[in-house]
Amino acid sequence: MTEDPNKGMQKAQVRFDCHGQATGKMRNELVVMMKLPFEEGPFELATDEGSFHGGDATASPPLALFVASITGCIMTQMRAFAKRLDITLNDLTVDSRAVWDWEAKGRVYETAPHYFEIDVSIDSPDEEARVIQLINVAKKGCFIEQTLSKANTINHRMKTADGWKAV
Amino acid sequence: MTEDPNKGMQKAQVRFDCHGQATGKMRNELVVMMKLPFEEGPFELATDEGSFHGGDATASPPLALFVASITGCIMTQMRAFAKRLDITLNDLTVDSRAVWDWEAKGRVYETAPHYFEIDVSIDSPDEEARVIQLINVAKKGCFIEQTLSKANTINHRMKTADGWKAV
Repeated sequence: MTEDPNKGMQKAQVRFDCHGQATGKMRNELVVMMKLPFEEGPFELATDEGSFHGGDATASPPLALFVASITGCIMTQMRAFAKRLDITLNDLTVDSRAVWDWEAKGRVYETAPHYFEIDVSIDSPDEEARVIQLINVAKKGCFIEQTLSKANTINHRMKTADGWKAV
Repeated sequence: MTEDPNKGMQKAQVRFDCHGQATGKMRNELVVMMKLPFEEGPFELATDEGSFHGGDATASPPLALFVASITGCIMTQMRAFAKRLDITLNDLTVDSRAVWDWEAKGRVYETAPHYFEIDVSIDSPDEEARVIQLINVAKKGCFIEQTLSKANTINHRMKTADGWKAV
């Protein structure tokens, strides 16, 4: 979202839905729709794994999409807010790193986030203090960064013969 | 990651790097590399925005990649762990919903996560209790779900004439 989703509104909800279908060995076909504040899409995406992980490498792995989404989100926010704050961006590049811990647990394994780093390179004729201000408002406007900054609950349900069951 | 990144190892780090270059009006070219536990990639991705948001709609918006990444990650984990736990998956579909709050703040805006829902449809001849077990181990093995479940710190730096500066 780079402009007010509802012009003149002060608050809104933004909702994205995704339908995933397992295909092939490890490939997932993913159809995403923005549902709120208005409909946009469908956006057709896919994930796969390399042969080492039992896949056919027909698409990027899920973690590549994840790191790309964070990087793209903060970059989009910087460009959108630069316009609003009259800050000139001649060039913008971002280098992100995401690191997780992986630990074997019996026949399966568990994972945990370790650290996230975002390095921003902005070519701007404006004062450094204004560019820092831009980065800081972009953090607060970035949906994904704000999501990672909080402990979120994810509710799961499983389809059963008797209907949806919380798991 | 669907197999042990290092066979026989009990612990490892998994690291993904992304380089983003702003192009066009709102498009970002994103090159992702897996760096640890071994190198894989590059994975070439992009984000853009629709005309309403000042973009050219040449790629999916960042939030579409984000919701696709969560959905693809949990699906991949279910298939990988089903093999390890000898659970048969004849078919697997997942429907996810991600909702954020958006609020205008002066000339910019702020965002916050609202809720996340993941509905799993598994066609399996195995007992329901075993399928529930599969979903629960998949949650713990899913890098992205584990990340969203915790409050993470993201460290930002800005390139200056004197080197990198924390912002």
